[in-house]
Amino acid sequence: MSSSLAERLRAIVGEAHVVTDADVLDGRSVDHTGRYRGKAGALVRPGSADEVAAVLRECRESGVCVTIQGGRTSLVAGTVPEHDDVLLSTERLTQIGDVDVVERRVHVGAGVTAAAVQRAAAAAGLLFGVDLAARDSATVGGMASTNAGGLRTVRYGNMGEQVLGLDIALPDGSVVHRHSQVRADNTGYDLASLFIGAEGTLGVITALDLRLHPAPPHRVTAVCGFRDLDALVGVGRGLRDTESIAALELIDGRAATLAAEHLDVPVPTTGAWLLLIELAGETDLTERLAHALEDAELYGEPAVGVDSTAQQRLWQVRESTAEVVGLFGPPLKFDVSLPLSAIPSFAADSTALVAEHAPDAIPVLFGHIGEGNLHLNVLRCGAEQEAHLYAAMMNLIAAHGGNVSSEHGVGSRKRAYLSMARSEEDIAAMRTIKAAFDPTGYLNPAVLFD
Amino acid sequence: MSSSLAERLRAIVGEAHVVTDADVLDGRSVDHTGRYRGKAGALVRPGSADEVAAVLRECRESGVCVTIQGGRTSLVAGTVPEHDDVLLSTERLTQIGDVDVVERRVHVGAGVTAAAVQRAAAAAGLLFGVDLAARDSATVGGMASTNAGGLRTVRYGNMGEQVLGLDIALPDGSVVHRHSQVRADNTGYDLASLFIGAEGTLGVITALDLRLHPAPPHRVTAVCGFRDLDALVGVGRGLRDTESIAALELIDGRAATLAAEHLDVPVPTTGAWLLLIELAGETDLTERLAHALEDAELYGEPAVGVDSTAQQRLWQVRESTAEVVGLFGPPLKFDVSLPLSAIPSFAADSTALVAEHAPDAIPVLFGHIGEGNLHLNVLRCGAEQEAHLYAAMMNLIAAHGGNVSSEHGVGSRKRAYLSMARSEEDIAAMRTIKAAFDPTGYLNPAVLFD
Repeated sequence: MSSSLAERLRAIVGEAHVVTDADVLDGRSVDHTGRYRGKAGALVRPGSADEVAAVLRECRESGVCVTIQGGRTSLVAGTVPEHDDVLLSTERLTQIGDVDVVERRVHVGAGVTAAAVQRAAAAAGLLFGVDLAARDSATVGGMASTNAGGLRTVRYGNMGEQVLGLDIALPDGSVVHRHSQVRADNTGYDLASLFIGAEGTLGVITALDLRLHPAPPHRVTAVCGFRDLDALVGVGRGLRDTESIAALELIDGRAATLAAEHLDVPVPTTGAWLLLIELAGETDLTERLAHALEDAELYGEPAVGVDSTAQQRLWQVRESTAEVVGLFGPPLKFDVSLPLSAIPSFAADSTALVAEHAPDAIPVLFGHIGEGNLHLNVLRCGAEQEAHLYAAMMNLIAAHGGNVSSEHGVGSRKRAYLSMARSEEDIAAMRTIKAAFDPTGYLNPAVLFD
Repeated sequence: MSSSLAERLRAIVGEAHVVTDADVLDGRSVDHTGRYRGKAGALVRPGSADEVAAVLRECRESGVCVTIQGGRTSLVAGTVPEHDDVLLSTERLTQIGDVDVVERRVHVGAGVTAAAVQRAAAAAGLLFGVDLAARDSATVGGMASTNAGGLRTVRYGNMGEQVLGLDIALPDGSVVHRHSQVRADNTGYDLASLFIGAEGTLGVITALDLRLHPAPPHRVTAVCGFRDLDALVGVGRGLRDTESIAALELIDGRAATLAAEHLDVPVPTTGAWLLLIELAGETDLTERLAHALEDAELYGEPAVGVDSTAQQRLWQVRESTAEVVGLFGPPLKFDVSLPLSAIPSFAADSTALVAEHAPDAIPVLFGHIGEGNLHLNVLRCGAEQEAHLYAAMMNLIAAHGGNVSSEHGVGSRKRAYLSMARSEEDIAAMRTIKAAFDPTGYLNPAVLFD
């Protein structure tokens, strides 16, 4: 990066917040899984929406690309710079407003983590509707940009459904404040929805108004074993649209066994597929749960948690599956969305496909049955094996009527596969919007489009 | 309109579907309230998305404006042509696909009415999440284009939340099919959301995949009287975010009295504000209702309906308020969104404002308390009085922290007031999108933008 641009950026954000140290840039140019690496020219940390806008203006005028970084928890290399970019970090945008208990909302900076919003909500007796394994690092700005899902989507929807308003710095250096103090607002284009899921290609989200939810007073959790994945999916189908559903998580028996071995997590039933069910609501739900399981072909007795200690223990089974896959080096991750009916056949076929391309690898699945969202983790998969397996897996997903991204987004890792999910006219319409907002294409150039 | 354009349009849609008869065009150029009138050059009724696209292409190339017409139930003159336009009607796009009971969805043409979708859903044991007074005329294409709300928004959200996929004919004559067979799909821009609420300025919705909901087995309805509007709002605030809420409708005592007088509708309690509450869910909810009302300062005994006949009778009270306002000529309608806390003061101030500008007029309110959405109907308000009252009312709404459109959209009637709801940068971003999709501005030119 030219020293004159660095100088102008320092004038905007302050000396301390333009970093050109090679080690720092090197650490910021690799994704957190360690699988994908790029190259950056500078790290810039603006302290306000206006500073973000001014940084964008300078970079655009200098013809320098900008890659936005939030918590850098992308699983599709969404924050890896490819053009010696300026890294624009939202890490200083961490203000958390007062929780409005009556209207159930809170205004937060884009750099606030999911966990911090959860804590602020809980302190006000409310609940934030999104939870995911990366909660301590993932920022709400990044989560909105990727429309993140997670463990509570089945009840509260994805991140987009929590967003009541946005501040966005546009590629031309202007700032749009799109907020409404009222719940119903039918005046013109739903700009917020356009920026949600746009993966930072249309602007930088700098702050958000987030919807919070009443915290249900009653909660019951269970982990049930199934020999037969069809039977598990059947229970999930019956529960996913009920009012009280709070979580519906598939846990691969292989992953649970690994967790029991390596992490010493007590698994209720080994040698089977597990389903974590959580119901929450205004009334006691233990009977409702028993009713849902009464005709199910379970393997072993379900482990039921009615108090929070027992519930945490059951959740540990699910969380440990996400943890254990990291013990074998960075896993190769696929984020797949499938019709529920296709899940059993995809589980079998994907295992066979992994065996074919990477015989020593261990495939394990977990995911969110309510949305038909599976995370296939391939442990011990080398880079060369990945090259072949990746494309083959994308085709397998398509063959099962699935989508190549369920909740992780496209990032740079899947940009070559966008056309498997979107038609030519559809991508053309997306490019029309991109070109209108960012004609030179300098903002997040590596992601989404090939 | 030139005869050569008419010829080319006939070649696309067939002789019978290009109408230039003056009486027909005259009838189609006035809105259904009779308050707003324009002028059209032809009525064109395409039979498919491809025909819609071809009509758009011809009109754009001929420099002729197009106004889209669905059920023509707009309350903001959203379908009134102002430029001797071609009226593009979706009335032939009325196919209804098979209801997918497992995935709870149905594919329908844009010209299908809300009532027809409700019937199709009910026949499959499911429920369509949007209901409004104009259900027999309003089309799902228009409802999506305006992101219509209604009587069930408090539970299921607006029309946009029911849309799982869209077919859209773009101003350049291409057709985007944006569908997904899976629930979770994070691949690129949320195009559907951009077209929802765009009021036909970015394209013509030709077909939709709609989400359907399980029909709750239990339902209880009540109409309660309140002397004090604050007390009514307090009950609404306590109920609006509960799981089982199914409707929360304010009924002005003045309207209820008029309905009792003119329509012979039995009103449980006259001389008071009324609140219709409906709870629905998987369990019996009569106790839940009693609990919600136990500390409320009611006026008289609540009328409670536990069977469908009694419930219909109570709904008749609400429906009759919408009907009775039409008995005094076309009412002037304001669609206002307010913070709940502002509702009592707005009710008082708006009554005073009407008395000031139109002393003979009768103001009556009804609306959807869950969203803070009030419909203020001014009966016996002349055109000259309207001219002054309209702008004054917009200012009053702003002074109460409200929004000038809650669910009716902007149309042409409110386009001059868009800047009261959206900032300059915000409108500029909207115009950027409009210009990208429709650089000549020929599609629905009268609505949204001034």
